[in-house]
Amino acid sequence: MEDIVQLKYALDTFYFLMCAVLVMWMACGFAMLEAGLVRTKSTTEILAKNIALFAIASIMYLMVGYYIMYSSTGPIFPSLGMLIGQENTLDAVMAGGDDAPYYSSRADFFFQIVFAGACMSIVSGAVAERMRLWAFLLFAVIMTGFIYPIQGAWSWGGGWLSEMGYSDYAGSGIVHMAGAAAALAGVILLGPRKGKYGPNGQINAIPGCNLALSTLGIFILWMGWFGFNGGSELKISDIESANNVAQVMVNTNLAAAGGLIAAMIVSRLLFGKTDLTMLLNGALAGLVSITADPLSPTAFGALLVGAVGGVIVVFSVLALDRVKIDDPAGAISAHGSAGIWGVLAVPLSNAEATFGGQLLGVIAIFAWVFLASLIIWSVIKAVIGIRISEAEEYEGVDISECGMEAYPEFTGNK
Amino acid sequence: MEDIVQLKYALDTFYFLMCAVLVMWMACGFAMLEAGLVRTKSTTEILAKNIALFAIASIMYLMVGYYIMYSSTGPIFPSLGMLIGQENTLDAVMAGGDDAPYYSSRADFFFQIVFAGACMSIVSGAVAERMRLWAFLLFAVIMTGFIYPIQGAWSWGGGWLSEMGYSDYAGSGIVHMAGAAAALAGVILLGPRKGKYGPNGQINAIPGCNLALSTLGIFILWMGWFGFNGGSELKISDIESANNVAQVMVNTNLAAAGGLIAAMIVSRLLFGKTDLTMLLNGALAGLVSITADPLSPTAFGALLVGAVGGVIVVFSVLALDRVKIDDPAGAISAHGSAGIWGVLAVPLSNAEATFGGQLLGVIAIFAWVFLASLIIWSVIKAVIGIRISEAEEYEGVDISECGMEAYPEFTGNK
Amino acid sequence: MEDIVQLKYALDTFYFLMCAVLVMWMACGFAMLEAGLVRTKSTTEILAKNIALFAIASIMYLMVGYYIMYSSTGPIFPSLGMLIGQENTLDAVMAGGDDAPYYSSRADFFFQIVFAGACMSIVSGAVAERMRLWAFLLFAVIMTGFIYPIQGAWSWGGGWLSEMGYSDYAGSGIVHMAGAAAALAGVILLGPRKGKYGPNGQINAIPGCNLALSTLGIFILWMGWFGFNGGSELKISDIESANNVAQVMVNTNLAAAGGLIAAMIVSRLLFGKTDLTMLLNGALAGLVSITADPLSPTAFGALLVGAVGGVIVVFSVLALDRVKIDDPAGAISAHGSAGIWGVLAVPLSNAEATFGGQLLGVIAIFAWVFLASLIIWSVIKAVIGIRISEAEEYEGVDISECGMEAYPEFTGNK
Repeated sequence: MEDIVQLKYALDTFYFLMCAVLVMWMACGFAMLEAGLVRTKSTTEILAKNIALFAIASIMYLMVGYYIMYSSTGPIFPSLGMLIGQENTLDAVMAGGDDAPYYSSRADFFFQIVFAGACMSIVSGAVAERMRLWAFLLFAVIMTGFIYPIQGAWSWGGGWLSEMGYSDYAGSGIVHMAGAAAALAGVILLGPRKGKYGPNGQINAIPGCNLALSTLGIFILWMGWFGFNGGSELKISDIESANNVAQVMVNTNLAAAGGLIAAMIVSRLLFGKTDLTMLLNGALAGLVSITADPLSPTAFGALLVGAVGGVIVVFSVLALDRVKIDDPAGAISAHGSAGIWGVLAVPLSNAEATFGGQLLGVIAIFAWVFLASLIIWSVIKAVIGIRISEAEEYEGVDISECGMEAYPEFTGNK
Repeated sequence: MEDIVQLKYALDTFYFLMCAVLVMWMACGFAMLEAGLVRTKSTTEILAKNIALFAIASIMYLMVGYYIMYSSTGPIFPSLGMLIGQENTLDAVMAGGDDAPYYSSRADFFFQIVFAGACMSIVSGAVAERMRLWAFLLFAVIMTGFIYPIQGAWSWGGGWLSEMGYSDYAGSGIVHMAGAAAALAGVILLGPRKGKYGPNGQINAIPGCNLALSTLGIFILWMGWFGFNGGSELKISDIESANNVAQVMVNTNLAAAGGLIAAMIVSRLLFGKTDLTMLLNGALAGLVSITADPLSPTAFGALLVGAVGGVIVVFSVLALDRVKIDDPAGAISAHGSAGIWGVLAVPLSNAEATFGGQLLGVIAIFAWVFLASLIIWSVIKAVIGIRISEAEEYEGVDISECGMEAYPEFTGNK
Repeated sequence: MEDIVQLKYALDTFYFLMCAVLVMWMACGFAMLEAGLVRTKSTTEILAKNIALFAIASIMYLMVGYYIMYSSTGPIFPSLGMLIGQENTLDAVMAGGDDAPYYSSRADFFFQIVFAGACMSIVSGAVAERMRLWAFLLFAVIMTGFIYPIQGAWSWGGGWLSEMGYSDYAGSGIVHMAGAAAALAGVILLGPRKGKYGPNGQINAIPGCNLALSTLGIFILWMGWFGFNGGSELKISDIESANNVAQVMVNTNLAAAGGLIAAMIVSRLLFGKTDLTMLLNGALAGLVSITADPLSPTAFGALLVGAVGGVIVVFSVLALDRVKIDDPAGAISAHGSAGIWGVLAVPLSNAEATFGGQLLGVIAIFAWVFLASLIIWSVIKAVIGIRISEAEEYEGVDISECGMEAYPEFTGNK
């Protein structure tokens, strides 16, 4: 019996760790996606933002975030990682009954830390090409240490939202829409890139400089999502859990496929061409959409949930440009609009969720993250400024913030 | 006992899922490899083809392909994923005896779906730079929904080829040569790129635009192949199976190494330079060669099987150019020629396979896939056309099909 | 009981294999990192070096390296993979008592082979842009077949260094500093790139051509390191081992984060700009630093160990330039200087290690690898030459060694 318990514990821990590695990998996916969608003169800076934010998320979530999100008692911060100071022993596991820990608390911590990174990664694309690097990094400190974990505590931490019946399996709302809400607040305060919108209301396309990189990014995100959703079952060591994890992965894949194909068809009909960036956004929107419940739908249902997400993202991108919300990576549409759809779609296949509970969750998470972010961005703006100068923007944020170009030999700027 | 059964089931399911994630990752490897081997003006379109075909493969294999390949009874289609509607229960697993399911049927489905994607990925590189995008996508629908699974049913589905003794562990023939056969049919109907072959028989090199991307692609494929071959043992939860999976991974790695080194030496002797694209093709050919049986050879034997594959691919690339088969990615050589070698090499180390059975498999699979593809390509050609116009080809398939360049700031086309 | 033993064996083997796949993936990380840090005219050659060296490492380690490193008796070489000829049986496992094998010896072999590849990967970046390709490949044969495994036998093989108390969990010294020592010897004999150091002592920056690729490389290395360190626990199938693996992964992540943030702050203070290449080097140095003991420190301690590594790497890069050691990839600093720090930091958290034992290990490994490499490089230099001509260097090592450019359409060289 002891042997069985140890083996189950080991398998569940290993499963958690492998899924966490896949989610960590998503940080690279976001970096590549965004680096391909900006111009060459903004590439170094967005790479720096993306890798630095993951480091910041790791540190802040260790220091305070994990404690805020998963500790319902005691002083809030700083924890300095206190919560993960002790580890489960065989005795504790054997003695614990149904509530006994069945995997390493450090594996759980690792899995949670990479989620905080993913949430923050969403922000960086939307504010690309014009924000001061250190203003962004400062916001990342607050977002990953406080704003994200506080609302996370409401649901995954067992707080009031979960008691109200809000259901969000792997975080269409808690992670993706939350990231999009923080991004939206930043973009509104920041304003669009110079030249994006003309004086007579025209919308100028600013093509991404490296679509191979962006496609790589979406493939990485697609792959990493098997850990993001697959790991959120939290257990694999019995037949039912194993079946569930498999179901989740199948559905995640089909939702991405559905989103891609739907966005491809819609953009072909709208534009007459097969717009690669819309294919990529469609796959991403499909993944975001299914994340609130990748377990309950059938494979065919998951395909449809993703396809609707893929349609939504195309129209959301067009609509945001209409109201002059300049989001170079389409992050607000892919994570925000599709995220809301994902949360609201849960009751369609999951009888335990209600439309009211889901709507409440969307409103509460969006309101909190958007308002808190708006305040923090405003304070940063007032104190150190959030936008580079017009001259710096013309020359490129890479030179002004990082002092180096990403592709010095390619662009003839030298 | 129940606990043991559940744990074994969970471990085998988890192993299957991780391997499937690695195989899914190969879709990205093909995309990067091919995007690096075409010209900049064809990059967006090949990226679009590669990510869209994976989505199409996922959907078509769900709808009909899996049913055709693994269901020997009942109506053939559409299945709408019916086959994965129900999942194994503990009772079924306990009651089943030796034939009991020992892993999630959804995990198996996920593993099979990514194989269908891999097979189709092989085609895209060969027809690059000149085919209409939607003609390709239409072919992908037929290939992944029907042509691939029908011949898959003959062997892995328990059909007549398996009864005739055809042995193909992870699909040197069933996946790789099949993809190459479909590609060959397409290339023959499509004709070479403008300028590839001169009026007096000269062969003009058209260098790939981004060898860093192609090298990334081969590394991704090399990594993903550990899931492709490693997962094809189908079981890991006992000592013998675990030893086998480990053996398979060791051999897969050494075959790739052997193929790379052999192609490097041959191309150095032939050309006087160390041709990077031949190194990459050599590694790929080594991987394809060992796929028909990565279990039976010793590590040293696997090295030799891969090395022969690496030699074959160099001469195959040269020979195809001689007969004006224009394959920008070398896919027909790496997957077709090396795939045939891999299938025929099985009896060298596996006493249960016969040369006759292997040859029969090669002929049957090649004939079916090549002829069926030729018909489908011909129908598509007749109805909507498969080739872009000469003016479009000159300007680049990216503009004509996708309306955007992959590297707009790099190439000075703007 | 038999079932339990089989399951444990299977789980530990699977864990080993997954970690090995992640370490294999690091070969790609090194390739991308280095390809982004050199100039376009040296990109093809560094890609060729990196993928070829992994193939060479696999073959040489099979032929002789593994035997040298882990066989304390019998004839030294060649083994032709003899050591992995036989595999564990259930009887052997059941009969073995505490010393019984508990995972596949082939999985161990696979894990070890990818470590040999990682060690060699470190060398390629330092000698970039000016070395003859085949001189490098020849050195790779000797390094992975003999120099690396001989010192590996001293510690991990159970030799005299391990008996003297040298403690190096996953190889800050045995892998990383060893690679850096071989690189240093090569760089000293090779001399700096033309134009790197001016006649009056000025140091000219030679910017890397593709920082997106380098960032991708660091993300890959960061991901792969979870296998590198996580797999070095060598066991996961009981509660204590599972906890340890989780702890190792958490600490590995935090050390990378600490290194990145520390290097970011230091370089911002020194240069006034946020130097992306220093962020990348900082993350890498953090990873190298924690590798000697990712288990003993608390999460907070790991953060500090990594942060000190991140500070060290910045000053080490500057110091090496001062003494005209031209290392295009910063490999000697990130793997050598940070590696030494990592080894010496072990006693800070691990009571079983002594400062004396660690220092002895640093000196012994460095002395052996540096001197042996110096001799081998010298012999190669005398016999076939190690440096390309000045004219070839001006035109680019890609043309002289590989006969092709990596980005023919981008650079206007055509």
